Amino acid sequence: MTSAPPRSPAVPTELLADRLRRAGEVAAGHDVDLLLITPGTDLRYLLGIGGESHERLTCLVLPATGHRAPPALVVPKLEAPGLAGVPLEELGIEVVTWTDGEDPHLLVSDLAGGPTRLAVADAMPAAHVLGLRDALPEAAQTLAGPVLRELRMRKDAAEVAELRAAAAAIDRVHARMGEFLKPGRTEAQVGADISAAILEEGHTLAAFVIVGSGPNGASPHHDVSDREIGSGDVVVIDIGGPLPSGYYSDSTRTYAVGAEPAAAVREAYAVLQDAQRRSVAAVRPGASAESIDAAAREPIVAAGLGERFIHRTGHGIGLDVHEDPYIVAGNAIALEPGMAFSVEPGVYFAGEWGARIEDIVVVTEDGCESLNNRPHDLVVL
Amino acid sequence: MTSAPPRSPAVPTELLADRLRRAGEVAAGHDVDLLLITPGTDLRYLLGIGGESHERLTCLVLPATGHRAPPALVVPKLEAPGLAGVPLEELGIEVVTWTDGEDPHLLVSDLAGGPTRLAVADAMPAAHVLGLRDALPEAAQTLAGPVLRELRMRKDAAEVAELRAAAAAIDRVHARMGEFLKPGRTEAQVGADISAAILEEGHTLAAFVIVGSGPNGASPHHDVSDREIGSGDVVVIDIGGPLPSGYYSDSTRTYAVGAEPAAAVREAYAVLQDAQRRSVAAVRPGASAESIDAAAREPIVAAGLGERFIHRTGHGIGLDVHEDPYIVAGNAIALEPGMAFSVEPGVYFAGEWGARIEDIVVVTEDGCESLNNRPHDLVVL
Repeated sequence: MTSAPPRSPAVPTELLADRLRRAGEVAAGHDVDLLLITPGTDLRYLLGIGGESHERLTCLVLPATGHRAPPALVVPKLEAPGLAGVPLEELGIEVVTWTDGEDPHLLVSDLAGGPTRLAVADAMPAAHVLGLRDALPEAAQTLAGPVLRELRMRKDAAEVAELRAAAAAIDRVHARMGEFLKPGRTEAQVGADISAAILEEGHTLAAFVIVGSGPNGASPHHDVSDREIGSGDVVVIDIGGPLPSGYYSDSTRTYAVGAEPAAAVREAYAVLQDAQRRSVAAVRPGASAESIDAAAREPIVAAGLGERFIHRTGHGIGLDVHEDPYIVAGNAIALEPGMAFSVEPGVYFAGEWGARIEDIVVVTEDGCESLNNRPHDLVVL
Repeated sequence: MTSAPPRSPAVPTELLADRLRRAGEVAAGHDVDLLLITPGTDLRYLLGIGGESHERLTCLVLPATGHRAPPALVVPKLEAPGLAGVPLEELGIEVVTWTDGEDPHLLVSDLAGGPTRLAVADAMPAAHVLGLRDALPEAAQTLAGPVLRELRMRKDAAEVAELRAAAAAIDRVHARMGEFLKPGRTEAQVGADISAAILEEGHTLAAFVIVGSGPNGASPHHDVSDREIGSGDVVVIDIGGPLPSGYYSDSTRTYAVGAEPAAAVREAYAVLQDAQRRSVAAVRPGASAESIDAAAREPIVAAGLGERFIHRTGHGIGLDVHEDPYIVAGNAIALEPGMAFSVEPGVYFAGEWGARIEDIVVVTEDGCESLNNRPHDLVVL
């Protein structure tokens, strides 16, 4: 046995009903007949059910507006009691249970009632994607992501409030960095203290803790190592996790430990700080996602450091720590109020050091609100 | 940013090389040209790389024996430094990086070099399954699970040692249950203490903690609630998690709290205990998986409790907490030495109480070894 999905704070039933209705409408506009949503953040968004996919199929079958199929939740019989807190009846969703030995994909086929255009959750495991393909050989499969991102990308006030609370929680961890980050300690020791602080400040999980000291800071996806932090090291600290609601924090600051860094470091850092500020300043309704990336990239390129900025400028954030909109060249989507994403340019000098500054911002009616508010300077601890 | 996959204890390079070679051979026997393995336990098994799939594609392209494609690991450029500890060169695997803005599925298509029969990891997210379908429209997609389970289902001595260590760790937690489980405490309070003990005893994560007291014990996938445990309650405790190696523990015991349970409970529990014992006694090379399920089910049915045993008898365990072989009606697979799985019959009386007894066993040359060794009696705490 493994346990039921973690229970999350209840999302009001009216809000879930509204999300389900809008998902059906957007699906119809995308020439989709049925959305098939397995456990993951899409299901959490639509029904308030947490947890991840297991080998036993749980799947919301949600018809596009006007489609004949009834909305239903296919669920293993032994997991049905765990749904007691989900207002399925009020939402008009039938529960269809199955027991070990049955093929649950055939149940979905029965519910679909004929050839259909199916949109499957982006995170649905291949085992179910191909199981559904075999059970519904006449159906066309596309991804549900393009439908659901139309909803999830635009945060409502309650979602922004959760992201604001998450950002405040991770800001409190950064505010305590002087307790953790000291010369002579290893990255792993510092990371363990940060993990504990992330939980103490209200997260349910220390989902990621990057302590990139000295040359390790030049690897953007480093985590921690047994490297001992020395006086004069530049250290990238990129940390975050979810609140009980599931909404994530994610913030990076770069610190100097024990001593002022060298002039070359200070100069490159000043370019980065200017780039991050310009990028945030460019955020407003109507601006394209790629223009925010360009606003961060231009001053870094102008300073001759373009080759040092080796990743996109940011990613949307919400129930997933990475979601739409991505702040990257080629993404022409126009920003709208309620969109929330990271602005996190970085510069990386392989074998030497790296730096990154990351805030989560949310688009407002006339600009943006930065949810993270710790100082951007290269603080010497 | 999110952090790199967690580093795991190194698996010897020769062992990885042997697994890769055998995977290629089994793939050829399954009429598969290429295995496409994204992060998850299959990739951890083959390359020692931990972590889960993100929206950025990381994918091992592993040819079947005799296929023309070279083995390669497609990886986002900014995650390549995190592979420093993986012996890719020794294993003959080329690293192919891509940067944000490129379509990595097209890189896989280039590597495949023409129409192919692809087997994708069972856990690969739909976003990549359909991305690969679109990038390789001539290719046929099947699941890699049937190939990899031929390897993963048969544990080698080092894997059995890890499962034994995991079982011993969770046995130590059950041995301390008297510290945690007391009348007047809530399930959530007990669960928090158990979670801490799971970590203290050497797991990296308290992956699941079921504290099903009184009527909550009748829901096999209950987790914890704010229900206060009363004197006389029967409580199902089903707990486990991974060691640093990734191998899981999973063990259930049922306890009576504060007082001897009623005669009806004791009688049904005796039937369950007998069923679990008979089921374990039936495990030996050549016996079918479903015969082990039947050995547990028959005495329960004979006692008139067949309707109370609402799930399969067990599941394989290793790097996944649920994997092949499944101990369920309809699974005729013959057991072999090295197969490891749970034997966990249960009886559930809705609205009243439930009980389950779960041990992990590993098939030996002439029977099986039970890795969990706590008493099976209905212990009164």
